[in-house]
Amino acid sequence: MIDLHLVGIGTGNPDHLTRAAIKALNRADLILLPRKGADKADLADLRREICAEVLEHPGRIVEFDLPRRAGDQPYLGAVADWHDAIAHCWRRAIEAHLPQGGSVALMVWGDPSLYDSSLRIAERLGAAGLPIRTHVVPGITSLQVLTAAHAIPLNRLAAPVTITTGRRLRDEGWPEGAQTLAVMLDAGGAFDVLDPDGVFIWWGAYVGMSEQVLIAGPLADVAHDILDRRATLRAAHGWIMDIYILQRLD
Amino acid sequence: MIDLHLVGIGTGNPDHLTRAAIKALNRADLILLPRKGADKADLADLRREICAEVLEHPGRIVEFDLPRRAGDQPYLGAVADWHDAIAHCWRRAIEAHLPQGGSVALMVWGDPSLYDSSLRIAERLGAAGLPIRTHVVPGITSLQVLTAAHAIPLNRLAAPVTITTGRRLRDEGWPEGAQTLAVMLDAGGAFDVLDPDGVFIWWGAYVGMSEQVLIAGPLADVAHDILDRRATLRAAHGWIMDIYILQRLD
Ligand SMILES: C[S@@+](CC[C@H](N)C(=O)[O-])C[C@H]1O[C@@H](n2cnc3c(N)ncnc32)[C@H](O)[C@@H]1O
Ligand SMILES: C[S@@+](CC[C@H](N)C(=O)[O-])C[C@H]1O[C@@H](n2cnc3c(N)ncnc32)[C@H](O)[C@@H]1O
Repeated sequence: MIDLHLVGIGTGNPDHLTRAAIKALNRADLILLPRKGADKADLADLRREICAEVLEHPGRIVEFDLPRRAGDQPYLGAVADWHDAIAHCWRRAIEAHLPQGGSVALMVWGDPSLYDSSLRIAERLGAAGLPIRTHVVPGITSLQVLTAAHAIPLNRLAAPVTITTGRRLRDEGWPEGAQTLAVMLDAGGAFDVLDPDGVFIWWGAYVGMSEQVLIAGPLADVAHDILDRRATLRAAHGWIMDIYILQRLD
Repeated sequence: MIDLHLVGIGTGNPDHLTRAAIKALNRADLILLPRKGADKADLADLRREICAEVLEHPGRIVEFDLPRRAGDQPYLGAVADWHDAIAHCWRRAIEAHLPQGGSVALMVWGDPSLYDSSLRIAERLGAAGLPIRTHVVPGITSLQVLTAAHAIPLNRLAAPVTITTGRRLRDEGWPEGAQTLAVMLDAGGAFDVLDPDGVFIWWGAYVGMSEQVLIAGPLADVAHDILDRRATLRAAHGWIMDIYILQRLD
């Protein structure tokens, strides 16, 4: 039997780690570390830094190459193939290093429940016949780091919030009835499709990391700034992750 | 100048604490601990337990009585008055114990951004003339503990999620266009207003705590179970906090 622990690690600051995450990493027989492409090397390095900082008896850390997916914001078919390929890598590493079974930990960016594929990949392992039990250790999400950095509540008083993707916002516009929107996985400025009148934005790039940049203001005033800043940062670092909250003020 | 740190502590398990939260509590000149009514004594005790476990030099912990609000799920006017009353308590405690200024920490259930009033109360202090800077340390939310306990993703692949309250669900029904709904602050079984056909529910009470109870299944099959269980648990413990995710399977 394999006990797979998907451990949320927060979004780039080792201080986001919870005590439960630190315990789970220390108890694992095997820690699988994905090696990313050079453009996202900073993210793989964070996982190594975390291991170096929190592991009491540096255990069995095994690195594996993460298969690349077909583009920045792939369509659903490409995603399914990519998940199959990753499941295959996990399985190979687990069978090679834990032939008798045991516990394996994977460090998941942010929280494993939010726009992350680890749970779906784990399901594939089970479906493929690996005797596996999946456990989740929650982690701080990029959305929480964004609200914390701006020191704002996510919701208006007792009001709902919709979390969505840049692609959805671009394709479908402002969702019917929503007042507060959190937007993730935006390949760049999907808010451009909106009528900015009466909309406020709180934006952040690299939230929680030393590179963090924040901009907030009426969308009509700051949209241009954000797009400029995003392009400059992306060019400077070679990659960018950003997230934002939009709110209709009425 | 007062530096106010709103420190998210997760939802009932001291292992939800992040390293950042532990540091913020240890650095504070003053920690304000709300004393709750007897019915919620368990929750106040958790804060004391956290202090006992993580404070290296048990600092200046000051307890204060939290004013009571006018009912279980009050209307907006009552909430505003209640927030004014709490702001007044915070201010009195801060002025009494930090007359020269300094840093004060407050332990916030879950994450300070999600259905929590601490940020709005802090704003009142600033508006009332206290020279104050507010800092937020994110914490694990009950929603993340729920998804972790069920080992499920919050979103369908690349799809949106709406977070809402029991009151909204009861008053307005299933929000137009939503597929996944997370429901918090439900005074009891608001899902009862829905046509359960094709809806799946993942429910949890006291998530993350030793009392945790989980139920999942097609709403048509388990709605009754959940309502029964909720009533029994509430009677047994004297209080209950529950949360659930609804998903249309189509
Ligand atoms: C694949 S999702 C993973 C989300 C992650 N599971 C979480 O809980 O935050 C990646 C998206 O999360 C957001 N994101 C993650 N880390 C971020 C960071 N440090 N700064 C800004 N946005 C971030 C961006 O919107 C990015 O496109
Ligand atoms: C005032 S809100 C506070 C939410 C908190 N800030 C968070 O991040 O989870 C209280 C609601 O959160 C949910 N909740 C908080 N703690 C919970 C727990 N341990 N188990 C189940 N639900 C919980 C319930 O829906 C409850 O009505």
